[in-house]
Amino acid sequence: MSKIYVTGLGPGAADQMTIRARKVLEKCPVIIGYTVYIDLIREEFPDKTFLSTPMRKETDRCRMAFAEAQKGQDVAMVCSGDAGVYGMAGLICEVGKDYPDVGIEIVPGITAASGGAAVLGAPLMHDFAVISLSDLLTPWEKIERRVRAAAEADFVICIYNPASKKRADYLKKACEMILEFRRPETVCGIVRNIGRDGESYEIMSLEKLRDTQVDMFTTVFIGNSNTMELNGRMVTPRGYKDV
Amino acid sequence: MSKIYVTGLGPGAADQMTIRARKVLEKCPVIIGYTVYIDLIREEFPDKTFLSTPMRKETDRCRMAFAEAQKGQDVAMVCSGDAGVYGMAGLICEVGKDYPDVGIEIVPGITAASGGAAVLGAPLMHDFAVISLSDLLTPWEKIERRVRAAAEADFVICIYNPASKKRADYLKKACEMILEFRRPETVCGIVRNIGRDGESYEIMSLEKLRDTQVDMFTTVFIGNSNTMELNGRMVTPRGYKDV
Repeated sequence: MSKIYVTGLGPGAADQMTIRARKVLEKCPVIIGYTVYIDLIREEFPDKTFLSTPMRKETDRCRMAFAEAQKGQDVAMVCSGDAGVYGMAGLICEVGKDYPDVGIEIVPGITAASGGAAVLGAPLMHDFAVISLSDLLTPWEKIERRVRAAAEADFVICIYNPASKKRADYLKKACEMILEFRRPETVCGIVRNIGRDGESYEIMSLEKLRDTQVDMFTTVFIGNSNTMELNGRMVTPRGYKDV
Repeated sequence: MSKIYVTGLGPGAADQMTIRARKVLEKCPVIIGYTVYIDLIREEFPDKTFLSTPMRKETDRCRMAFAEAQKGQDVAMVCSGDAGVYGMAGLICEVGKDYPDVGIEIVPGITAASGGAAVLGAPLMHDFAVISLSDLLTPWEKIERRVRAAAEADFVICIYNPASKKRADYLKKACEMILEFRRPETVCGIVRNIGRDGESYEIMSLEKLRDTQVDMFTTVFIGNSNTMELNGRMVTPRGYKDV
């Protein structure tokens, strides 16, 4: 039985994928993904068949993968980051109901929470919540409820999709909600282009973050009440040192 | 300047580390870590100096790493999973204040949330909270508050350290709190020994999870209100399919 390997490539740089992900790419004759991610690996694998669909055509892309697998060849469906975190793994499982003759395996990758945390220092040493501010597929009221709950319970908060052209002020709105529960000087960090050319980061207060414009290539971290800035790094203590 | 590379090895299997992590291990003459993790890689690198300290001696292990680096050699400080998620990255940054002549770089790995999700299917397709039930370094009241907040706001919840010998009933307590807000049939999953020999998983209702005994090598996933079981997989829909 041929298989679809839903494969996370990690945050961008080729050596941020796992050895297993690399083996999957080597093994599969067909690689499918959103154009931007395909372009990250195309040069390295000149002999593969690369297939793509535009953004927002995710279901078509999944059916394309199953159609290729039904021809008897293994398919790598690639995503940046982790295919299992806001990635294609779920939709492949859903669409897979219609293709019982094709196997599915999920190959995890480094998601932006892990990749961005490593750039900033160590913000995720304690309980954290990952929230996407995209309201394309989620009612804004539900996002608000989650932001408030995470802020009130003192989670470190990692925000995916903090802004887009249509949603320029969403991060500002989120920060205002968080400020209902957290001090303005709460330590926050933003990372742009994790693992890619132009990677950059900044550590700042929650108050400053509220008035900072970010783009869709940015991942945002809001510290908990103990998070500190230490030698230019964002660090949430776990407590070992006091033990 | 010599450097400490705080390196996540991923969930266990050697090919679950990133290519970058592998390069770090190849490059550093000294590798330091908790005995269990060292044993996972010792055979592959017979020429390295391996150093270790017992569990709970994390600060000593960090100072050992800095002492080795001060001798002018690069050091890999290894953890299972992601060094940046409940790992050693934070403590290295904290202890590093006393060693300004040693560089620090965090090399992310696949954390149990990503690794376990891939085994179960696709539970983390939507906003999620990661919570450790270990009250060794955190007051139980704070853990309770976070479990309740995450349950009420309909996060997918990923639980680390769900039990130990002394804390046999902590998962049961957490499930009881979650049941205040979520239906008993909420789809949950547990994964044991992610990426290692004896890896196994089970999908079950929240009600059944409450009465299930797990061990410290288990990662627990509690679905949100939309999570479903689909062909033996735990899947949280993101919504693409309905668009």
